[in-house]
Formats: sequence, structure tokens, C-alpha cells
Amino acid sequence: MVVILDGKETSAKIVEEVKSEVDKLKAKGVNPILALILIGADPGSTRYVNLKVKRAEEAGITTQLHHLETATTEQAVSLIKKLNADPKIHGVMVQLPAPKEVNEGEIVEAIAPEKDVDGLSPVTFGKIVLGEKSFLPAGVEAIMELLKRYNIDPEGKHWVVAGLTSWLGKPMAALLLNKKVEVTAFAAGDLRLPEFVKQADVLCIEVYKKGAVTADMVKKGVVIIDNGNNYEGKKVFGDVEFEGVSPLASAITPVPGGVGPLLITMLLRNTVKAALAS
Amino acid sequence: MVVILDGKETSAKIVEEVKSEVDKLKAKGVNPILALILIGADPGSTRYVNLKVKRAEEAGITTQLHHLETATTEQAVSLIKKLNADPKIHGVMVQLPAPKEVNEGEIVEAIAPEKDVDGLSPVTFGKIVLGEKSFLPAGVEAIMELLKRYNIDPEGKHWVVAGLTSWLGKPMAALLLNKKVEVTAFAAGDLRLPEFVKQADVLCIEVYKKGAVTADMVKKGVVIIDNGNNYEGKKVFGDVEFEGVSPLASAITPVPGGVGPLLITMLLRNTVKAALAS
Repeated sequence: MVVILDGKETSAKIVEEVKSEVDKLKAKGVNPILALILIGADPGSTRYVNLKVKRAEEAGITTQLHHLETATTEQAVSLIKKLNADPKIHGVMVQLPAPKEVNEGEIVEAIAPEKDVDGLSPVTFGKIVLGEKSFLPAGVEAIMELLKRYNIDPEGKHWVVAGLTSWLGKPMAALLLNKKVEVTAFAAGDLRLPEFVKQADVLCIEVYKKGAVTADMVKKGVVIIDNGNNYEGKKVFGDVEFEGVSPLASAITPVPGGVGPLLITMLLRNTVKAALAS
Repeated sequence: MVVILDGKETSAKIVEEVKSEVDKLKAKGVNPILALILIGADPGSTRYVNLKVKRAEEAGITTQLHHLETATTEQAVSLIKKLNADPKIHGVMVQLPAPKEVNEGEIVEAIAPEKDVDGLSPVTFGKIVLGEKSFLPAGVEAIMELLKRYNIDPEGKHWVVAGLTSWLGKPMAALLLNKKVEVTAFAAGDLRLPEFVKQADVLCIEVYKKGAVTADMVKKGVVIIDNGNNYEGKKVFGDVEFEGVSPLASAITPVPGGVGPLLITMLLRNTVKAALAS
């Protein structure tokens, strides 16, 4: 019987845990603060950063939204350095993608590792590869948390990571270099995808192609983490053909309602962790 | 016909190229300087760092050996910060492993990325994962260089990285996340090694077990990079049973004489690159 990895329900539980941690922190006189930096005026980024603010405030986390309508790389870096140095601020994140006029890499690199609650800076990535303690990018943290909550041991398995975005596939593969697993990774568009999907005990996929994985392609009992977001009008589909594949899987994330609902929640939990460690 | 990837000969050629670059730099008034930090008095580390000094000086690179017989983490970090800030110093490296009394991670993390000629700091590793420009650890750089010099295209192949040390397997796998390859990685001691070795178009192995790979285990035409160093008395063997396997391979590194002779050479070349970029 396939287990549906319900990200919505799991997220709701974790939000309650986060709220309770925030209350405990406040009782100790620590007020968790998340600084969010938005550069430019991209409507998608603006909407998403506003949603983060709303969700943080609902969980009792104070937010500081720094909206730089126009900014040079130096100005953004200088703001981040100020936030790094401010002991009242626990988490610092930059809404990505940043506008093309600035050097996104340099900006993200400026965030102090202990405040990098989005887990996307190079030093955080390096710590992940090296197996050192660090924050994880929200998607990676969400996947590991879903497996944990459903008592699925990530180890002793052959993981196949299909799709290597810098926010998900790459750090996921990097994390797995430190687990007792075999991990096979390749970018979206790889023609040998079927050959490797067939071997997967755990498939973590983000190739942005509806129906990229069908029932004939998977091994019975596979755990599937589908990170695809393929829109047809207002309807969204994953990369895996859910109806056909799910009866063969031992566990699978639905799309929508799998990893997605956990993303902001993981950011909030990381902020609380940063406050606890401060 | 198998091609023997001759690290000794390749290294000798590159040393000549390095010398010529050093001469050009000196003619422009730039004197390349490598700072090497040795903490403690481990005989192996002392010998190796002295060899690096000797080889650097032979190539015309000035060295500064900082031998801290005893040091706290803070003292080592403070020395590194001084070297980072000194525009006359182009490369900074710490001989690893550092003694247990200091925090090796924290020390290496202090090296500025643009002077991290050993390529072992977390921020360098993060840049490797992200596909950003950075130095590479000597072993990884050596492997990519050997393939290049022998006109072996690393792309379009299934790489199997067996053994995940922090100086070789992990950064190798991280680099491959940015190439057009499929990469499968797992740690030494993994029981499914034969299953994956059989699939390898390129096998990069460092599991420290003589005879870990025998002729019956490989695919015809495989490229083998053997990083094993298994001593029997004064004789050293790789992880791959060379006599039996080499007739099946399209290319293979001998042990000794494969990747090993290139390691210090890559450090020297990185120092020249750092001087060129300074």
C-alpha cells in the first residue's frame, strides 16, 4: 500500500512546533528576527517574499523586510554585513533570483553562515559537502523531514537525483555524499534518465517535464519525491505520472501538496534554530 | 589498446609550463609567493610540507613556511588572516591533517577563497558544487588535467566515484554535478560497489583496498583513475588489480605514477594562477 507523503499536514504540525519554540524563546527574552532582502520589483519575487513575511509573523517571528528597489551589488553586500553584525537579527535571506544587474553570487556569499537560514550560500554548500553542521536549503530540509516524519530510513538505499538545480538537486546530492547511500545524479534533459530511474530505491526528481516518469520506468517499492512544477493553466503537475506510478511506489509525494507546503516552514524553523544557537 | 595515463611524464611537462609562467610573472615584477602553514610536528606532515617547499622553490616560486610547533585555533586563524591581507602573498595552505587540539575546519575556513590554492576550504567546496569559478583540490585538478592531456572527454559518460574522502571523492563528485555526465558516488566499504563499478564508463576509486576491483568487475573500455595507496612493505598498490584489469580498460592510471606525481604540481600551478589573478 503506497504511503502519500502529505506535505500540507506535515507542515501544519511543524508550524505548531515552531510556534511553541518561539514562545519558549520569547519567555527567555529572545525575540527571533528574520531579515528578508528583496532587490528589484519582480512581481513573483515580491509575492513570495510577502508570503514569507506573513507566515513568519503568524508563527510569532518578527520580520524586517528590506526592499531595495534599485541597488548595486556593493549596497546589497553592505546591508548584509550590517545585518550579519547585528546580534538582534537571527536569520538573513535574499529573495532569489536577484535582478541581473547585481552579482547574485557575491551577495549571497556575504551572508554569515550562522544566519544563512535559506542555506544557499557557497560556504553553507561547502559545509554540506563536507558533512559539517550547517543549515540546509529549504527543499533539501523538507525532503529529509518528510522522510523522517513518515519513518522512511534514507540510508541503505540507491538515491537517484534527477535534475540539478542549485537550490535542490545539487545540495541534495551533496548532502547524500555524507549518508550511507549510493547516489546517482544528473541534470534535467539527460537521455539516460530511464536507465537510472529504473534503479532508484529513492527518486528525487525536478526536471520540469510532466509525465517524465511513467509506471513502466520504476522499480516496485520506490520512494518518490516529486519536485516538478508543471503548470497547465492553473493546474499544476509533477514530473511523475502520479496515477500510474503511485500503485508501484512504497511512498510518494503528491503535486501539489508534497514538498511545496514545507518550503517556507523550513525557513521559519531554521530561523528559530538560528535564534536558539545565538 | 589501453592508454597508460602517465602522471610522472605529465607532471614534468606541467612543471616546465609553471616555470615558464613564473618567469613571465617575474619579468612583470610579480614574485609568486606561497605561504605554507604546518601546525605541530607530525613526521609525515613535516616531510610532505618540506617536499612542497622544495618543489615550489625549484619551480621559482618563493615559499614562506610558517611552522607553528604549538598553536591554538585562534592563533592559526589570526596568522591566516594576516596572510590573506598581505597583497604580496598569493597562495595560503595549511598542511592537513592538523593536530586534534585545533579546529581544522575553522582554520581552513579562514583562508580567503582567492588564496585557497589547496582548494580545501568550505567556500571553495561550495563554489565547486555551484559550478562557480574556484580552485580545485589537487587530486581533482590532477584527474581533470590527466584526462585533458590524453584527450579523454570527461563528458557524456557515467562516472562512478568510489570512496568519498573530503580531499578527493567528495569534491570530485561535486565538480561532476556541473558536467554533462551521470555520476554515481558512494563511500569506501559500500557492499554494492561491484554492481556500480560494472556500469562505470569512468571509474574514480579511492577505497584503500588492494584488489578491490578485478577484471570480472569492469565494463570493456572503462577509463580508470586509481587513487588507492595500499602499501605492502615498501611496495605500493592501487585499489585496482592492474595486470588483469588494464587489458579491458581504454585508459588507466598506474599506481605508483598516476595521480600522485601531479598533486604537488597542481598546488604550484594554482599558486601561479593566484598570482596571475592578483
